[in-house]
Amino acid sequence: MGGTSGAAGFRLADLARLVGGRVVGDGDRVVTGVATLEAAAPEHLTFLANPRYRRAAETTKAGAILLAPGSEIEGRDLLLADHPYLALAGILEAFHPDTPPPGGVSPDARVGQGVHLGRDVSVGPFAVVGDGSHLADGVVVGAGCVLGEECVIGEGSRLHPRVVVYPRTRLGARCIVHSGAVLGADGFGFATKDGVHRKIPQVGRVILEDDVEVGANSAVDRGALGDTVVGRGTKIDDLVMLAHGVRVGAGGLIAAQAGVAGSAELGARVTLAGQSGCSGHIRIGDDVVVAAKTAVFDDVASGQFVAGVPATDHRAWKRAVAALKDLPRLRAEVRRLRDRMESLERERSERSEEDR
Amino acid sequence: MGGTSGAAGFRLADLARLVGGRVVGDGDRVVTGVATLEAAAPEHLTFLANPRYRRAAETTKAGAILLAPGSEIEGRDLLLADHPYLALAGILEAFHPDTPPPGGVSPDARVGQGVHLGRDVSVGPFAVVGDGSHLADGVVVGAGCVLGEECVIGEGSRLHPRVVVYPRTRLGARCIVHSGAVLGADGFGFATKDGVHRKIPQVGRVILEDDVEVGANSAVDRGALGDTVVGRGTKIDDLVMLAHGVRVGAGGLIAAQAGVAGSAELGARVTLAGQSGCSGHIRIGDDVVVAAKTAVFDDVASGQFVAGVPATDHRAWKRAVAALKDLPRLRAEVRRLRDRMESLERERSERSEEDR
Amino acid sequence: MGGTSGAAGFRLADLARLVGGRVVGDGDRVVTGVATLEAAAPEHLTFLANPRYRRAAETTKAGAILLAPGSEIEGRDLLLADHPYLALAGILEAFHPDTPPPGGVSPDARVGQGVHLGRDVSVGPFAVVGDGSHLADGVVVGAGCVLGEECVIGEGSRLHPRVVVYPRTRLGARCIVHSGAVLGADGFGFATKDGVHRKIPQVGRVILEDDVEVGANSAVDRGALGDTVVGRGTKIDDLVMLAHGVRVGAGGLIAAQAGVAGSAELGARVTLAGQSGCSGHIRIGDDVVVAAKTAVFDDVASGQFVAGVPATDHRAWKRAVAALKDLPRLRAEVRRLRDRMESLERERSERSEEDR
Repeated sequence: MGGTSGAAGFRLADLARLVGGRVVGDGDRVVTGVATLEAAAPEHLTFLANPRYRRAAETTKAGAILLAPGSEIEGRDLLLADHPYLALAGILEAFHPDTPPPGGVSPDARVGQGVHLGRDVSVGPFAVVGDGSHLADGVVVGAGCVLGEECVIGEGSRLHPRVVVYPRTRLGARCIVHSGAVLGADGFGFATKDGVHRKIPQVGRVILEDDVEVGANSAVDRGALGDTVVGRGTKIDDLVMLAHGVRVGAGGLIAAQAGVAGSAELGARVTLAGQSGCSGHIRIGDDVVVAAKTAVFDDVASGQFVAGVPATDHRAWKRAVAALKDLPRLRAEVRRLRDRMESLERERSERSEEDR
Repeated sequence: MGGTSGAAGFRLADLARLVGGRVVGDGDRVVTGVATLEAAAPEHLTFLANPRYRRAAETTKAGAILLAPGSEIEGRDLLLADHPYLALAGILEAFHPDTPPPGGVSPDARVGQGVHLGRDVSVGPFAVVGDGSHLADGVVVGAGCVLGEECVIGEGSRLHPRVVVYPRTRLGARCIVHSGAVLGADGFGFATKDGVHRKIPQVGRVILEDDVEVGANSAVDRGALGDTVVGRGTKIDDLVMLAHGVRVGAGGLIAAQAGVAGSAELGARVTLAGQSGCSGHIRIGDDVVVAAKTAVFDDVASGQFVAGVPATDHRAWKRAVAALKDLPRLRAEVRRLRDRMESLERERSERSEEDR
Repeated sequence: MGGTSGAAGFRLADLARLVGGRVVGDGDRVVTGVATLEAAAPEHLTFLANPRYRRAAETTKAGAILLAPGSEIEGRDLLLADHPYLALAGILEAFHPDTPPPGGVSPDARVGQGVHLGRDVSVGPFAVVGDGSHLADGVVVGAGCVLGEECVIGEGSRLHPRVVVYPRTRLGARCIVHSGAVLGADGFGFATKDGVHRKIPQVGRVILEDDVEVGANSAVDRGALGDTVVGRGTKIDDLVMLAHGVRVGAGGLIAAQAGVAGSAELGARVTLAGQSGCSGHIRIGDDVVVAAKTAVFDDVASGQFVAGVPATDHRAWKRAVAALKDLPRLRAEVRRLRDRMESLERERSERSEEDR
């Protein structure tokens, strides 16, 4: 069962209208769901976003194919869209309309004093909302969430079950926070004297701007004095760690298990691939891409693609890796050169003996 | 207090019968618990599974020793079993019988509409079970768990406190899920245009087959279109991340803080050691072992043991690491060779001057 | 809003008395909060702990500066303290006094049978405390926490919301555990035969000594037979994993996303930087520092500073990294040497032809 299907089917022509595309073939064909090229059956729409899979698209059993103009496949019913993957988002939303939980505060939730509840707010069972918090219109707080005092959650934001939001945290509009995420725990700050670590009170906040998504079991710590800020539209995957005072620009993508140490600043549209890390107090420019497993210890200029530990230009890293692989051979080569050198030198000294 | 003790003691002979082993020495000796070689006292059974620790086994204060035939220690009461470590599992179960929580649904739990509850199901306080879910016989849902709609939990599976299971997730029989784990959160999928990331609805599922264990605070994301599947008997440690559409074969071992990116496929009996990672859309064969901290960026054939970033054959990696350590010396050697070369060349040119 | 401000202001002279420092300038100056050098306004106290930022201190808009004797800045109101960062802790506590939650057990909490509740214990809504547990004076159990049977929580310890503590876990006094942390889940122990992994019951405990802090979503597993022990005053950041039977000495610092495999022993005052890892069954001496991203596979002697995969002396690692960067150039050099060698050898063989 690799496919997916909504309650009702859609005519291709209707889907084309929905996503601003056009049909080649039978616009009246009805598809009942979306599936991958391999898993699709005749009742499905499938899609070709990556030209690498063209072969599979030619042989898919799908009834219709969503793809970009210029990559048409003959004899098939096609839905052409300039950005097939973007169009896919809209089509999937049509097949799987978001079913918001029933509005209202569960009788099993505990909402503190002086809490503002906007219109159509939903608070699930066993959730706790701290005194003085502000939940804007359409906010969804899942079952078992705990929000501290004076939190602000922007319009339409959704906290999945069992998210914890420490006091004074602020979320913009349309944020999504997945289960287990913790926003606003204390940063890791201690003053050490004679081997004893004294806690530095962490009195800053966490601020997520609009349209931020945070994955399951990620942790974004509050600032020590200032704030930890995640810019508009940045998407954060699971098990990510953002330390106190980190600033992430707009439009970032931070993949699973990446981590950013205290007070580091990331520009706009930065990508951190999986399991990468950034040291504290560094500055990473706009549009930087950090490869998986990389450790960034120093500033990175805008537009760079870096890899390795420590991070370096991606191509330089690839060359170094290739050279490293070749290193045992190189050592053998040097050993042979030394032997040949010795033989030449021996000869020379014999010659000079003779010359004498 | 390194040892452990059950309520009552056991005769060695009874333990031998339990695990299909045999006693050498006094079968009537009673042991009241199991302890490590170092921590054991005369009332304890200890065990020797790794021959490296034979020395410690000879001097342990334990009253009896569990070990394999062929490695007997003279003058001690022994319990011989072909697989001592496997036998240990059975013996520990005898000393520490699992005490399932009291059956029944806590009055403080909230069970939705149309939920099937099998025999002897236990649902703890403040747990939430979504509409249409199916809990088979003997299922245990710990305190504070949240299950979405239409989840299926197989016979005898146990969710420790505060697990989250998103809608439509399916668990087989006898699965164990530790606290904080999140099954079925959205995969990290976005269509990006002009720096804006639009969410691709994640409409696949998570499926854990029978006998899967998932560690504390791990995250297994639901598939984008298809399913994320963890094969029968695979064991997953803490803080592991499996992305959307990952497929893990049967009998795998995935150690703590490992991560697998979207749509990667792992064969049967694959071991991922701690903090290792696999790129998306790759295929890792059966019986592959991935060393700790390794990053696998490409397909790996069955039976390989790989290490490094990027992953390579484990022995080649060890050679490269050794060569890298030796690299400063090699550079010095090359510098000396160049000097000697220059001296030879200088001489030659002088000689050819003379010859002229 | 980079700064922070308490309800009331403080006179510099009073702050000096509080932290055992002294004022240079106007002791009657009132500051209403603390801010970083950049963010501070005239009503703020700021601080200079790192001499690198002296320049910024000279131009800060802060009304007063906390710094060490010997680094005075002319014409400013100063608060001199021998350890400015340590003094900052006390000053922030004065501005932001900890507001413990109201004492008492929430009517929405479920406390088991035979539980000892000390004076001024607070148990939040939807928290569960297992039978036979012992909460000493002043313990705070946040909303949604789940404690198993027979847990012991020492005086003044605080569990933030939604912590899980498995049965028989023991915490000392003044511990802080952040949201999402899981203490005492099963270690990852299996006996494998014919590709089937049989669970080894994990019957040891987790013991946190006094003054331990555990970050958000970290996991400390219970011992297999013995105990997992975290020494007095050790601080653990977010998303850290300590496996079964690990022993961490006193005064350690374990940064985010670090992991320690089973039965490894860390001495006193060990620092594990972010995303580092230690293999199981190794011994790391006192005062060892493990750099970020490092993998320690073998024992490390006391006082070492190690880096790399596998870990080696930090300076040796830096040299190897530099040499690696230079490796493509070195290969080219060796290729040229070989060519020159061949040319010399060719000449020699021509010469010996002539000589014949």
